[in-house]
Amino acid sequence: MHKITLLIHCADQPNIIASVTNFMASNDGNIVYIDQHVDREQNIFFMRLECEFSLNTFSLEEFKQSFQSVLAEQFQLHWKMYSAERKPKMALFVSKYDHCLYDILGRYNSGELCLEIPFILSNHLDLKPIANSFNIPFYHVPVTKATKHEAEQKQLKLLETHQIDFIVLARYMQIVSETLIDKYPNRIINIHHSFLPAFIGAKPYHSAYKRGVKIIGSTSHYITEELDAGPIIAQDVAHVTHTFSIKDLIAKGRDLEKIVLSNAIKLHANRKVMVYNNKTIIFS
Amino acid sequence: MHKITLLIHCADQPNIIASVTNFMASNDGNIVYIDQHVDREQNIFFMRLECEFSLNTFSLEEFKQSFQSVLAEQFQLHWKMYSAERKPKMALFVSKYDHCLYDILGRYNSGELCLEIPFILSNHLDLKPIANSFNIPFYHVPVTKATKHEAEQKQLKLLETHQIDFIVLARYMQIVSETLIDKYPNRIINIHHSFLPAFIGAKPYHSAYKRGVKIIGSTSHYITEELDAGPIIAQDVAHVTHTFSIKDLIAKGRDLEKIVLSNAIKLHANRKVMVYNNKTIIFS
Amino acid sequence: MHKITLLIHCADQPNIIASVTNFMASNDGNIVYIDQHVDREQNIFFMRLECEFSLNTFSLEEFKQSFQSVLAEQFQLHWKMYSAERKPKMALFVSKYDHCLYDILGRYNSGELCLEIPFILSNHLDLKPIANSFNIPFYHVPVTKATKHEAEQKQLKLLETHQIDFIVLARYMQIVSETLIDKYPNRIINIHHSFLPAFIGAKPYHSAYKRGVKIIGSTSHYITEELDAGPIIAQDVAHVTHTFSIKDLIAKGRDLEKIVLSNAIKLHANRKVMVYNNKTIIFS
Amino acid sequence: MHKITLLIHCADQPNIIASVTNFMASNDGNIVYIDQHVDREQNIFFMRLECEFSLNTFSLEEFKQSFQSVLAEQFQLHWKMYSAERKPKMALFVSKYDHCLYDILGRYNSGELCLEIPFILSNHLDLKPIANSFNIPFYHVPVTKATKHEAEQKQLKLLETHQIDFIVLARYMQIVSETLIDKYPNRIINIHHSFLPAFIGAKPYHSAYKRGVKIIGSTSHYITEELDAGPIIAQDVAHVTHTFSIKDLIAKGRDLEKIVLSNAIKLHANRKVMVYNNKTIIFS
Repeated sequence: MHKITLLIHCADQPNIIASVTNFMASNDGNIVYIDQHVDREQNIFFMRLECEFSLNTFSLEEFKQSFQSVLAEQFQLHWKMYSAERKPKMALFVSKYDHCLYDILGRYNSGELCLEIPFILSNHLDLKPIANSFNIPFYHVPVTKATKHEAEQKQLKLLETHQIDFIVLARYMQIVSETLIDKYPNRIINIHHSFLPAFIGAKPYHSAYKRGVKIIGSTSHYITEELDAGPIIAQDVAHVTHTFSIKDLIAKGRDLEKIVLSNAIKLHANRKVMVYNNKTIIFS
Repeated sequence: MHKITLLIHCADQPNIIASVTNFMASNDGNIVYIDQHVDREQNIFFMRLECEFSLNTFSLEEFKQSFQSVLAEQFQLHWKMYSAERKPKMALFVSKYDHCLYDILGRYNSGELCLEIPFILSNHLDLKPIANSFNIPFYHVPVTKATKHEAEQKQLKLLETHQIDFIVLARYMQIVSETLIDKYPNRIINIHHSFLPAFIGAKPYHSAYKRGVKIIGSTSHYITEELDAGPIIAQDVAHVTHTFSIKDLIAKGRDLEKIVLSNAIKLHANRKVMVYNNKTIIFS
Repeated sequence: MHKITLLIHCADQPNIIASVTNFMASNDGNIVYIDQHVDREQNIFFMRLECEFSLNTFSLEEFKQSFQSVLAEQFQLHWKMYSAERKPKMALFVSKYDHCLYDILGRYNSGELCLEIPFILSNHLDLKPIANSFNIPFYHVPVTKATKHEAEQKQLKLLETHQIDFIVLARYMQIVSETLIDKYPNRIINIHHSFLPAFIGAKPYHSAYKRGVKIIGSTSHYITEELDAGPIIAQDVAHVTHTFSIKDLIAKGRDLEKIVLSNAIKLHANRKVMVYNNKTIIFS
Repeated sequence: MHKITLLIHCADQPNIIASVTNFMASNDGNIVYIDQHVDREQNIFFMRLECEFSLNTFSLEEFKQSFQSVLAEQFQLHWKMYSAERKPKMALFVSKYDHCLYDILGRYNSGELCLEIPFILSNHLDLKPIANSFNIPFYHVPVTKATKHEAEQKQLKLLETHQIDFIVLARYMQIVSETLIDKYPNRIINIHHSFLPAFIGAKPYHSAYKRGVKIIGSTSHYITEELDAGPIIAQDVAHVTHTFSIKDLIAKGRDLEKIVLSNAIKLHANRKVMVYNNKTIIFS
């Protein structure tokens, strides 16, 4: 049994759904999931589909070629096709905070995450023991003004060597280089500790304290060149009161950060996220 | 332009999605929404589909017959097909509480609800002025032990005369008769003022107070013969504290009741709810 | 039985609580509620206290004078004392949207709000029938560029004549004049249809749609001269998805707006809000 | 500087607040926190107070004796007084699930929890490596039908040796013995994986799946002899849909369990919980 996931977007036009489902049927595929969305403002059609093939001789490469020539050209589709057999490879970038790291590794251990973690990378050594206790390789790549370029080269090398599909910044407190962003577009997931677009930038809990908000939030988004302005994948919030000190806000925020980031990781790893025009479509 | 909504369930089997979408395409229909769900425990397939036909000569009756003979028999489908042109007709049963009634009529006035309200029925006269101020016919059908059967007959007559599609009990404080339930299976929507299955039956806020819960809830469900045990359509909750008196719980609960009930009404009116084995599938 | 509510703030210093409670006891008062908060950053002490006096001869004015001379001067207290017998008078300013108005009047009718509504004021006539159906005087004060000053004078006159304590802008779509803000500092409550400080200004749902947020919010705050920057009283949020059109966001937002605004009204009317340095302390 | 926390409950009667605050003042104490609650149904008064003493010679024992003779007898107070210097000692009972354990230990490491963890106890060896990686003693006390009494004796011995103040069952899958409950009344905190009182007993996620609820919950409560019926400390919920399998419910539930349990631990450790008549008062 082979199973694929197909993501499509294109200009909205009649008969796409019927044509795609027909193509799957004519190739002896059985559709087990289908969902679609039409952005009526921009007139763009989005679809996510899972299909099973029971043929022993199924070749993903040939099927892709056939899909491209039979359908994709006709409808001018933008599409990606994934085999369920290949779990995505995720690199974890961390710094000194451990709450997101523990949360992700705990889920990883429990089998909740359908992905592989080839390595953890940090600019500090603080979290190495945690990586060790979960038996995951840990690379220490310090970043200073002087070594910035060198560090970036080391990161890129590691990402390539390990065939990384996407990167998660689990409270990695460094600005990621443009080169990295260009190489992994919509594939670097960050967790920002505020309810974006409120409190962009550094020290959002301090800003939230100062403004006297009654709710704090957390936002996971793809990194783009503009700070904290990338496509939002997941958000959550918690109620707070005037009795919360900045320290209390930070502690409460940690609960949000870890759950929101893990949700975003799951959505991305399960290929449930599409990005168009700096916004996400999140399939169920 | 004609638009239909199709709801299907059947034993899970290969090729249903392709066959249905193909059928629509071969009838010059353009699918604008499709969603499906497979209940893996019971092996049942569910689908909701919206399709547009630009033919001037489209006949819903003929199309239904064609769908039945070409597809429904082959796959042994249970299905319902609705024309978007015909808004469902909803009867509102109320008693003395006005918060749900105001909420529903406010939404109705603002165009938020895609339905018609031919009449409001109550066993009391208290809410007649509200019905009047919204220009909706109001029928007073008192229910006493002696007049129970007679009242039921009056209700049935009104429902039939007005070709009612579904009934909403907006805090109607009477037990609905079996006859009514049988005539409107999964078409009588109730709002229960607790987080079901906790606190079934009368005075749930009193029970919540006694148990010292930190969260109260509200549940909208279809009425079945077993009390408060019908398929759940929507639920929501609110945090409470030890400082809440029973009166406070009731006040807080009103906010939940009206929002949860209105959500359920919208889902039902938009044909987004399917029921199978006492559970609901809620399409997006 | 006389009951008072006392609100205090002052520089934090030892013995305030004991001194105040002692003062009440020595005047035969029985404290039935006490809560306090210390802002450790600014070193300010806040207290809310309810006290009952069973003396037949209790005079609020004399008690206030005594409190001022015995305690307030010594501790340099800023304080307000309210009699529970006098319900605060609230003026409702509306425009064309009716959802907040229905919600407030529904609660008012049910006895949920401990206040009086001497009148409803609007720059349009659309909501006059609602005011009539609830038997509340309605004043139509149109505002145009030419009549702005005149309209303001009419508003001030009405507020004074009816001895209004605080004003609620229930989706009143006009900028309130500085004169009004100066006359009713921290006594004009607004509902802004976003999660402040995100999406300040006009059309926040359009901005939320454009940014692709996964949660929308609503904020009730006191009006200050800076737009949407006044002290926040209450906030709430709701989850949304990529399937929500702007119209859907607006509809969902209405549910938030009405509940958040009514919460803020209740907190203010029950004298549970203190304002200091553009932030609120909300007592339980 | 000495700091105490005082918890009081008694029959509601005039002058308690003034008398207690006066007593503190006359002992050169400065009250830095005070909150109270009156249960009007049962006519019981509850108070929590924090007081600082700058005297070098402050003796907690003498102060307690003085409080007892001067005040407690007069008002027939039930009271407890804690020194802020002594952190409560918490024993962690676990079984095979690690998510709550990781969550608690992560918070413990980050300094979020104001308590000590002298040991972790389990009936299995699975989580020993986690205890080791956090440098906390781990005791393996297997429980079988035959060894039940012996195991209980070992548990009691460990609890006494380590002067444990309260026990946390972090998904400890065993019924706790009556002896233990009697020895630690309202001091054994459990996490139940449902929104109590819905789905009492084993396999609540299976029951939730079967009932088709749209929200699942988690409840932390003190263990009493009646199963899942003890005083509720904290609850939280999450929205689910018909697409959630039992496995999905369990995964989602883990997020609730760990956050709800940690909240309950913090409230208890900070002496913010009082229990009366099987309900909790939770001070802010």
